[in-house]
Amino acid sequence: MNGKMKAVVKHHSGFGAEMQMVDIPQIKEGEVLIKVKATSICGTDVHIYSWDEWSQSRVNPPYVFGHEFSGEVVEVGSNVTSVQCGDFVSAETHLVCGTCPQCLTGQFHICKNTKIIGVDTNGCFAEYLTLPAGNLWKNPKEMPFNVASVQEPMGNAVHTVLSGEVAGKIVAVIGCGPIGIMAVGVAKAAGAAQIIALDLNDYRLGLAKKMGATSVINSKNQNPLETVSRLTHGNGVDVVCEMSGHAVAIDQGFKMVTNGGRVSILSLPVRPVQIDVTNDIVFKGITVKGITGRLIFKTWQQVSSLLASGQVDLTPMITHHFPLEEFKTGFDLMLKGECGKVILHP
Amino acid sequence: MNGKMKAVVKHHSGFGAEMQMVDIPQIKEGEVLIKVKATSICGTDVHIYSWDEWSQSRVNPPYVFGHEFSGEVVEVGSNVTSVQCGDFVSAETHLVCGTCPQCLTGQFHICKNTKIIGVDTNGCFAEYLTLPAGNLWKNPKEMPFNVASVQEPMGNAVHTVLSGEVAGKIVAVIGCGPIGIMAVGVAKAAGAAQIIALDLNDYRLGLAKKMGATSVINSKNQNPLETVSRLTHGNGVDVVCEMSGHAVAIDQGFKMVTNGGRVSILSLPVRPVQIDVTNDIVFKGITVKGITGRLIFKTWQQVSSLLASGQVDLTPMITHHFPLEEFKTGFDLMLKGECGKVILHP
Amino acid sequence: MNGKMKAVVKHHSGFGAEMQMVDIPQIKEGEVLIKVKATSICGTDVHIYSWDEWSQSRVNPPYVFGHEFSGEVVEVGSNVTSVQCGDFVSAETHLVCGTCPQCLTGQFHICKNTKIIGVDTNGCFAEYLTLPAGNLWKNPKEMPFNVASVQEPMGNAVHTVLSGEVAGKIVAVIGCGPIGIMAVGVAKAAGAAQIIALDLNDYRLGLAKKMGATSVINSKNQNPLETVSRLTHGNGVDVVCEMSGHAVAIDQGFKMVTNGGRVSILSLPVRPVQIDVTNDIVFKGITVKGITGRLIFKTWQQVSSLLASGQVDLTPMITHHFPLEEFKTGFDLMLKGECGKVILHP
Amino acid sequence: MNGKMKAVVKHHSGFGAEMQMVDIPQIKEGEVLIKVKATSICGTDVHIYSWDEWSQSRVNPPYVFGHEFSGEVVEVGSNVTSVQCGDFVSAETHLVCGTCPQCLTGQFHICKNTKIIGVDTNGCFAEYLTLPAGNLWKNPKEMPFNVASVQEPMGNAVHTVLSGEVAGKIVAVIGCGPIGIMAVGVAKAAGAAQIIALDLNDYRLGLAKKMGATSVINSKNQNPLETVSRLTHGNGVDVVCEMSGHAVAIDQGFKMVTNGGRVSILSLPVRPVQIDVTNDIVFKGITVKGITGRLIFKTWQQVSSLLASGQVDLTPMITHHFPLEEFKTGFDLMLKGECGKVILHP
Repeated sequence: MNGKMKAVVKHHSGFGAEMQMVDIPQIKEGEVLIKVKATSICGTDVHIYSWDEWSQSRVNPPYVFGHEFSGEVVEVGSNVTSVQCGDFVSAETHLVCGTCPQCLTGQFHICKNTKIIGVDTNGCFAEYLTLPAGNLWKNPKEMPFNVASVQEPMGNAVHTVLSGEVAGKIVAVIGCGPIGIMAVGVAKAAGAAQIIALDLNDYRLGLAKKMGATSVINSKNQNPLETVSRLTHGNGVDVVCEMSGHAVAIDQGFKMVTNGGRVSILSLPVRPVQIDVTNDIVFKGITVKGITGRLIFKTWQQVSSLLASGQVDLTPMITHHFPLEEFKTGFDLMLKGECGKVILHP
Repeated sequence: MNGKMKAVVKHHSGFGAEMQMVDIPQIKEGEVLIKVKATSICGTDVHIYSWDEWSQSRVNPPYVFGHEFSGEVVEVGSNVTSVQCGDFVSAETHLVCGTCPQCLTGQFHICKNTKIIGVDTNGCFAEYLTLPAGNLWKNPKEMPFNVASVQEPMGNAVHTVLSGEVAGKIVAVIGCGPIGIMAVGVAKAAGAAQIIALDLNDYRLGLAKKMGATSVINSKNQNPLETVSRLTHGNGVDVVCEMSGHAVAIDQGFKMVTNGGRVSILSLPVRPVQIDVTNDIVFKGITVKGITGRLIFKTWQQVSSLLASGQVDLTPMITHHFPLEEFKTGFDLMLKGECGKVILHP
Repeated sequence: MNGKMKAVVKHHSGFGAEMQMVDIPQIKEGEVLIKVKATSICGTDVHIYSWDEWSQSRVNPPYVFGHEFSGEVVEVGSNVTSVQCGDFVSAETHLVCGTCPQCLTGQFHICKNTKIIGVDTNGCFAEYLTLPAGNLWKNPKEMPFNVASVQEPMGNAVHTVLSGEVAGKIVAVIGCGPIGIMAVGVAKAAGAAQIIALDLNDYRLGLAKKMGATSVINSKNQNPLETVSRLTHGNGVDVVCEMSGHAVAIDQGFKMVTNGGRVSILSLPVRPVQIDVTNDIVFKGITVKGITGRLIFKTWQQVSSLLASGQVDLTPMITHHFPLEEFKTGFDLMLKGECGKVILHP
Repeated sequence: MNGKMKAVVKHHSGFGAEMQMVDIPQIKEGEVLIKVKATSICGTDVHIYSWDEWSQSRVNPPYVFGHEFSGEVVEVGSNVTSVQCGDFVSAETHLVCGTCPQCLTGQFHICKNTKIIGVDTNGCFAEYLTLPAGNLWKNPKEMPFNVASVQEPMGNAVHTVLSGEVAGKIVAVIGCGPIGIMAVGVAKAAGAAQIIALDLNDYRLGLAKKMGATSVINSKNQNPLETVSRLTHGNGVDVVCEMSGHAVAIDQGFKMVTNGGRVSILSLPVRPVQIDVTNDIVFKGITVKGITGRLIFKTWQQVSSLLASGQVDLTPMITHHFPLEEFKTGFDLMLKGECGKVILHP
């Protein structure tokens, strides 16, 4: 397809981004052109937008950013057989090498040569994007585009929560950004007996409550360890989903988990963290899991099924919708933390 | 405690049982006397009552049968520290040896020398029973006695359903006796995307529906394999919980499971079953799990938490209540299959 | 590459095969031409050679059969980046679709649309063959070609043995064809405390002994269940690797496994098998695993490492070498069972 | 039994210990009197002997210390049925409560109320000790007493190494005290393809080599990360067994593990450790396991089988034998690190 399209471009090495008219990208062999129907703002996009330290070291403006979306296949390259025009799709955002030891043993999510859509390549804050067919996940026709767009980050939540047993367990979710809030919903769907959500932001704790948290703790107002101890009759929690990235909260997570429990960490603390290995890991005999991306495509299958079955309902946490042109309003909300998930419509 | 009590006694080697006044049993060291508050009828009790082939080879009348109950501790023997008078309790019904290789490695549920309460010893269809303290599970004070009584068979359902992944999966429950119906509820609570219940009895399929089945199949009226294939877009189910014990249904279970799936078998078919090992086990690369009893006490912890949290609500399947004296009415209902769980109140 | 090459062709729908000069195959996009250095005879090849019932229903002569080999890449098609000319390779023999639910969740070995090299396509009993680059596994330069050729069936043995815990366990290998013999070596390498090999063929039991079996049982001369019971102090074995395909032996496998044990089945019994589900699966609480193919490529990584490290030494079981032209001698030996692995050299 | 016995008594709150004649302890109900045949010195005993910070906070002199031993049952209390006089035994050194949530779910090794023999109670550096029958593990009559004595710490090694997959993997053992050296032997027995041992002490690296290490690295002389990278073709190791307790070594362990790998930590660093959670745990998607004690008695079963089968031969690492009276010589060797395991004979 030829012509121009609207796109949100990270145009310079500094704060912000701007709407531009750019060329519609051209597909190559094995690729697909997708018309974007809905795209959502990720915390990573906010890092790039606000041009933090990590972005400065990783990202090369100018380019189109954004990586969470749902859309429709409108053009298909040679050698593509897995999708066809008219299919509704979202995409796994890790572009993997297929040949490192991790890929060869089916651990694509921890490929040693991963590139990320919208970070290392042009992304989806635009009317169209091209992608390798192998990265696409087909969506059911009945799934609303805004929900389908949010599957990628929900995959992070699912990967984190379901990296061990949940049914009948007590789960703490530390950090209630959008992925944390979704983790609450996933834990609920998977049969957690108690779900304790912790954050410093009452708005987001309110969303966590709506998604099924049985208790919420604002760590500014309540001592998290004392409160968790009281809620668990002194036993602590079975599972910690760490999504805050804060050193103090991480330490609290290790302190609140019970002997034999699990700490699954999705967050990315900006510098090394002090951990009391002896008392909080060894004597407790716990398991710590580092969680990155989504199992390809096992996690996508779980996400899609949990949504299609109604076991997880994302309605309460998709709080805002804007036309793509009003992306700045969306980023402002994200920066303030006064939102669940923000959807942009190209 | 001295005196007499009411008890339902399997009095002879033949059909039926009778209410008798018998001595209240005396506790020994390490044992506890429990006042029974509610007791429920198990399929095993029906086998004993109707004096089938298995009962004839295993059971020695006269004795008090019954093994599902909830009650209150009223007397405590020497060397008992884990419970005290006034505690509300139910009991793990497997009396294990503690010294066989299975017990030594923590697999108490498959102890090579297991005895079963109410089968090999006096049971709980009575006002009182004695038990080793180590077999007791403490119930929360808020849990209704009738629900607490049903935890033992619900443990079978939990053990079966949770013997592998469930969240986002398609689960078939074959055989909707009380444990099958509870398995439906457990699968729902654990995040199953679809739960397909199969039986020949519409009444029980109705209960399965109330407990969360997304589809029910009466195999008398519908071809189970065709229907399952249609419901799963030709892929088959991820998990089969086999609770029917019928050779034809077992074969169908192996045929409906998808490649890489799981077949967990709790049922006890009366004779060997023909299985197409090559096509239904090997080429499919499936896992088959034999399920017996409950993990001691891991399963009890899961059961108790799922009930206390409201993730599983047994109300729809506890359908009948009678005084202990009217036990025959309860057994009649069980024999006809026109009931969920039947509770007797001493 | 153009020209003619020697090939063993399954030339007609009947017993046998014949050596022919055929065209060297031409590579397509994504494919690679391999010069075969060594190729080994699989039991499946013997089925095709002797034209049994299964072959008649599956195979379409005339075509080149054979699927176990090692070779050197001599020509590389467009879009191939994972291997280059001069690389030494073997191949995963399952050609998978990449788009079924099993492939999408990384379970390529149980792809619903699998084709098999040398069964459904031309194979490696020839001087050259073409294959998709994605099916190749690179061999270390130091690995002898005859050992490298046997990795594919050794993968079956590794997949079977390592589908659960082995270290410190008692393992029975039922059926000591070449894969069974290799399973003995793998169990030894993985720390099995006892390895009991069972077969009817003393020659092959002798090979099993050389590969590390601690006891061998010729079931013609000794009662397998009594002997196993004696060797295990009445406890039975922890793991059964079923590689015989005989109904009686399969039943014995289920009878000799201890409570909580594992039965991994690689064999393909020609018709349904009677299994005492109640006593041998349910009451014992065992796990049964159907094993097909190799985990792609996790199993290959394990095979390659076990060989390269010397943890498994295949020397005792690679018993015969012939030029490709003398394939009939090799097939005769296989039909008589008087060999370990037979290697053909083109 | 009445009378006096020799015992090594931690007699005061300071360095050292002294040999004293003390009363032979009296058994209570459920207990057993054991005549000690061999007892070995643990690193924990060295801490108590040298009176470090941890000992000062935990231990109450005067008492008999020591916890690794083998012996013979010479007197049996009432209600003991699992062992009898003449049995050869060793003991699990964790005395557990049996009623905390961890014990109830079969996780006895992480009991919340654990007491340790020879730390919190009188121990085995004596001619006799009493123990609850439930803590005893029966030894085969053929097992030498010195080997049987070392099973307890070998259990730590087995628990650490076998807390995930090993066959065909690359394993690094960081810290080659006696347990590290045994971990090398266990990894070898369990099929590790490479075993890289790291320490600062050449004597102990020599023992590691004898136990099966394929490479040894003295981190004083070689850069551990560069050397490991070279030995693993840049991929890193699959498994790290951390047994050093040093912050720098722990950090190196996290840096040398490959994506998707496992870090099992048995060591007890004296203060919190800085860990680069983002790069070394999350992005790598690794699993960290805290290891404490031994699985009761699953690990003992593994230890006993690995020794009895000859899969692990401890001969090279049991380097010194002394009469109990010469305990000071043994402790001196341990303090200098110029030994493997030191056995004392009462």
